[in-house]
Amino acid sequence: MQSLRNKPIGVFDSGFGGLTVLKELQKELPHERFIYLGDTARLPYGTKSPDAIIRYTLECCSFLVEQGVKLIVIACNTATSAALDTIAAQFSIPIIGVIDPVIDTVTSGNVGILGTRATIQSGVYQTKIQHKIPSAKVTQVASPLLVSLVEEGFIDHPMTQLAIREYIRPLHDASVDTVILACTHFPLLKSQIERELGPTIQVIDPAFATAVAVKRTLSNLHLLSDQNSSQPLFYVTDDPEKFTRLGQAISNVSLSNTQEIKFISQRFTE
Amino acid sequence: MQSLRNKPIGVFDSGFGGLTVLKELQKELPHERFIYLGDTARLPYGTKSPDAIIRYTLECCSFLVEQGVKLIVIACNTATSAALDTIAAQFSIPIIGVIDPVIDTVTSGNVGILGTRATIQSGVYQTKIQHKIPSAKVTQVASPLLVSLVEEGFIDHPMTQLAIREYIRPLHDASVDTVILACTHFPLLKSQIERELGPTIQVIDPAFATAVAVKRTLSNLHLLSDQNSSQPLFYVTDDPEKFTRLGQAISNVSLSNTQEIKFISQRFTE
Repeated sequence: MQSLRNKPIGVFDSGFGGLTVLKELQKELPHERFIYLGDTARLPYGTKSPDAIIRYTLECCSFLVEQGVKLIVIACNTATSAALDTIAAQFSIPIIGVIDPVIDTVTSGNVGILGTRATIQSGVYQTKIQHKIPSAKVTQVASPLLVSLVEEGFIDHPMTQLAIREYIRPLHDASVDTVILACTHFPLLKSQIERELGPTIQVIDPAFATAVAVKRTLSNLHLLSDQNSSQPLFYVTDDPEKFTRLGQAISNVSLSNTQEIKFISQRFTE
Repeated sequence: MQSLRNKPIGVFDSGFGGLTVLKELQKELPHERFIYLGDTARLPYGTKSPDAIIRYTLECCSFLVEQGVKLIVIACNTATSAALDTIAAQFSIPIIGVIDPVIDTVTSGNVGILGTRATIQSGVYQTKIQHKIPSAKVTQVASPLLVSLVEEGFIDHPMTQLAIREYIRPLHDASVDTVILACTHFPLLKSQIERELGPTIQVIDPAFATAVAVKRTLSNLHLLSDQNSSQPLFYVTDDPEKFTRLGQAISNVSLSNTQEIKFISQRFTE
């Protein structure tokens, strides 16, 4: 029987935004195997209610647990903010979201947050930053169009520049010195966002911070793999061809090994 | 017992795009009652696979049939192109989509289509137009960002203008003389699209053509209501508050009477 330490790590996202986190995990943990699940049948999560997000996330994490993963990374800010606490209480393996690792790296007292509408409405970054630094000023901006622009491949387009300018205006007005990219799609726009913000504002990418936190957790639990890595397995709940095509184009992660799965909830009318 | 002619008309869309169709239906059929269902838990459909769209549409139409409607309007191009034939075969009441009524009005031999990725990939407009006018040239452009821009309320924003310019370039290159707005969100951008297209290009709005077709069908079947109308009932599968707020702001339809329903598929993990 395979020892627990050599079991794979599960990575879950609503679509392919989590691939930015997977890339950093692969860099930071070159001996690990990964199973990635993208819930493409129901994306985007950022515009759904907390109740719906919790149901979908629970279903996806149950699937990964059935695949025998040793740890799950919820590589999606929306799912982390709405569902992490509920989900972590249901499973015995460690579940790591993309928010706490970022909060750990924040030292500024004047922080800006760019995220989906659901993440911003949850107020989770503001609450957690002010819990750590009570005097901190936090300026939050819901930036849903940036997700669509990335998903449509408009990375270096004047429209994207206009959208970034529109969304960061309140951050300039508040004179923030640090901006958190609170959506896993946004690291793909990091250089464009940095250019519009200017050189004096630090941009925090959740993917790197999360990978470091996962490594630390596995190390503390003596669960780091002692075997060789292999190609990640990819599962999606809809349209594996589109996931492969768009995900590869955008993230430069090789997405061969993508299979489609259906949950009971998607099958019941058939 | 209520006679069949005085039962309500069901209107189904993935979200609030179908409200543009509902508005025209109310204008054209002032004596009818309407039940509107928006599948907001799973929107947008335009980026999903045909299989998923058929499952979701079947589930939603079953709900409307259970409410006793006499006719269903599938007020969504994506659902019409992927699912209408399958759905119509399952129910005994008339099911009317938004595509055939538009095709009926096309007389041009050089037509442009703006739609979601799923509608464009289905090729349904091209096939149907060329069936009617075999020599017709059809230029199709997937314009998914226009949906996001409408849903975020950027109706009169320079970003939207840039997106429209980007998407209509192939239509200008092809010298089309007619453009079909093949997504129920796009009538909300009609004046902006007309401005960018210029005065010599005719723009066809599916909402009006569909309302006319529904009236004709009900009249042919002797099913026009002889009673007074009442406020439409609205059902959504997620977040009625958001539907009410955004839908009202964008469509100017009054969305009091919005209730949330959950399908078995959304409940099974609870």
